[in-house]
Amino acid sequence: MTALSEKAAENLMALREKKPLIHNITNYVVMNYTANALLAMGASPVMAHAPNEVEDMVAFAGALVLNIGTLTDGWISSMIKAGKKASQLGTPIILDPVGSGATPLRTNSAKNIISETKIAVIRGNASEILSLRDKNSKTKGVDSIHSVDEATEAARNLAEELHTTLTITGPVDLITDGTRIIRISNGHPLMGYVTGTGCTATATIGAFLAVDDDPVSAAATALAFFGLAGEIAAETASAPGTFMIQMLDALYTITPERLRAGCRIQGE
Amino acid sequence: MTALSEKAAENLMALREKKPLIHNITNYVVMNYTANALLAMGASPVMAHAPNEVEDMVAFAGALVLNIGTLTDGWISSMIKAGKKASQLGTPIILDPVGSGATPLRTNSAKNIISETKIAVIRGNASEILSLRDKNSKTKGVDSIHSVDEATEAARNLAEELHTTLTITGPVDLITDGTRIIRISNGHPLMGYVTGTGCTATATIGAFLAVDDDPVSAAATALAFFGLAGEIAAETASAPGTFMIQMLDALYTITPERLRAGCRIQGE
Amino acid sequence: MTALSEKAAENLMALREKKPLIHNITNYVVMNYTANALLAMGASPVMAHAPNEVEDMVAFAGALVLNIGTLTDGWISSMIKAGKKASQLGTPIILDPVGSGATPLRTNSAKNIISETKIAVIRGNASEILSLRDKNSKTKGVDSIHSVDEATEAARNLAEELHTTLTITGPVDLITDGTRIIRISNGHPLMGYVTGTGCTATATIGAFLAVDDDPVSAAATALAFFGLAGEIAAETASAPGTFMIQMLDALYTITPERLRAGCRIQGE
Repeated sequence: MTALSEKAAENLMALREKKPLIHNITNYVVMNYTANALLAMGASPVMAHAPNEVEDMVAFAGALVLNIGTLTDGWISSMIKAGKKASQLGTPIILDPVGSGATPLRTNSAKNIISETKIAVIRGNASEILSLRDKNSKTKGVDSIHSVDEATEAARNLAEELHTTLTITGPVDLITDGTRIIRISNGHPLMGYVTGTGCTATATIGAFLAVDDDPVSAAATALAFFGLAGEIAAETASAPGTFMIQMLDALYTITPERLRAGCRIQGE
Repeated sequence: MTALSEKAAENLMALREKKPLIHNITNYVVMNYTANALLAMGASPVMAHAPNEVEDMVAFAGALVLNIGTLTDGWISSMIKAGKKASQLGTPIILDPVGSGATPLRTNSAKNIISETKIAVIRGNASEILSLRDKNSKTKGVDSIHSVDEATEAARNLAEELHTTLTITGPVDLITDGTRIIRISNGHPLMGYVTGTGCTATATIGAFLAVDDDPVSAAATALAFFGLAGEIAAETASAPGTFMIQMLDALYTITPERLRAGCRIQGE
Repeated sequence: MTALSEKAAENLMALREKKPLIHNITNYVVMNYTANALLAMGASPVMAHAPNEVEDMVAFAGALVLNIGTLTDGWISSMIKAGKKASQLGTPIILDPVGSGATPLRTNSAKNIISETKIAVIRGNASEILSLRDKNSKTKGVDSIHSVDEATEAARNLAEELHTTLTITGPVDLITDGTRIIRISNGHPLMGYVTGTGCTATATIGAFLAVDDDPVSAAATALAFFGLAGEIAAETASAPGTFMIQMLDALYTITPERLRAGCRIQGE
């Protein structure tokens, strides 16, 4: 049992006790599932994107979740407005750069949010994360990475460059702030067949950031928790519909003890 | 057995027979669940918010549901446009002032909708409802209420002030038009762990308003029905994911007879 | 066993092998369910509507799905922009004219999309499809159709007029390109109690269009597949909540062999 397993149990307990408000500016596809996941685990979700409201709303929040799926210029500008306010208030922000690298709008929007606000954690898949490099970056692109070691090195360099904590999710999740390296091997392949599991992992990190000041440990414990919910769901579900419902159930029923025992975290 | 239990059974029967079109202008988070709930209970939901369409659409509707979650100025202006048309046509309107009191945008938007349209029923939690007072109101605020009697008195005063029927949901729901006072004790705590159960309760009242001219009895019977669905869902579900699916099932399977027997309504 | 049953099995196999990106510009109500259905059957959904992104996104797509539910002028203009690009690229487009005929905005928007882009397939119910006639059309309106033969003749005329393949779904689905006539009798009545089953049938045709060049056979095999998922869901579910989840499961578990055996397709 690692110190992070212990921390995971503590974070989950704190989350259910404090029920922090998590302010989400996220995409249309996953809003419902994300809100249900946050409620099930013990947080209080709110979705609000109006430019004349986001600053008021984020002032109440324990964390701000920014997700650029189904983005438009107006939404991105609300995200930056909310993000600036959160940065001023010291409220942790997590960014999910959905599809960054796929279209110029996505890549540019993700980079703008990063440069205008103080992001605690960025979560994405490998190609999304590595698309965030700037032109002069020494970090290798996705296509030029041929081994796990190269991927780790690239992530570490980029975290340093961006002054943030990066979380690259996949069969094994990688978390790094440029110094520490953590790997999480919780999770289940059926998670890839439910829309918004990545986005909901991001929101879960948001919830844990609201009760844990250390972005690396918040991200690691949140992903272990979310991945464990997937494993538990797969005990009774073998197809995506049932699985996504069982995941919500698991987010509600997992006890701190079970989480402590079920974490598969490497690194400290 | 009360007269309202009998009315609940009648309303449910009428709903399934007439399948009224319920026009919703509601928030992104709950659109899917609300639509599924309305379909399951027997109504025909439509979601439409375009300013150059809402008047045409509401003309076909048996009721109009306005919900200010994920609001923006543009959506509020569409709500007011639809609401004015519904008011002209005598089509009942129900308002869900989601988050009123939390931010100025929400409170002002809710108040604008109320002043510009003829609202049959407003449903919210206690703090949302009491935020609708105007500056000169004699009604006490949430923080100054210390007993159930005070809450009841505040609601009754506010219903008179706003010339509408107020529905304050919680462990026990309170319905008042300023004269009559009804309490509903159907429901289950797991409803609080599913996003949009409040919004869906509002939509359910909308569906019942389409078949019952009396706002107090429509609201009371709708909430007894919706709460009973929660109770039945909890017979087989013990966590929020399964519970929310079982609730949809229950909205479909509850018979008028079961509703008549299961209503827990006080007051007439 | 018909040649189309064989083709259905081939299309499903190809879909799961190629996992084509399906670009959806669709309504808020069904985005989540549609995305989950596409993932479950083996496709890769993306939802993107920003005017400054749709052309970039559709360039990666195997098919474009346009759905006018919860439309606004801005969304329709993005649909046309994406549709023009898809037309240039030879990427198949499917249109779901949700609510066409109900309001002028819907009817005009559907007609504009049809005139500005090259639509491979249009899927709707009978009144939506027949609302797409122009003023000088010889095709009869819904109200003037009194028999199955008249409906078939009307659909055939309209497909010729619009130079596209029409898919009219109902208890029995009708597919025609003006020459061929196919009927599908897969499906289950509970599908009418789940929001967005029509929209998701449309998206399923989109996925099949990405692996089958023939619009008639893509539409027919997709609808047989989707309807079979409904039949299988109804084997274990008797109410809409459970049913919609079981449908997602079935879209994932149906094998090409089971689809071949389960198709109920008439005509070739």
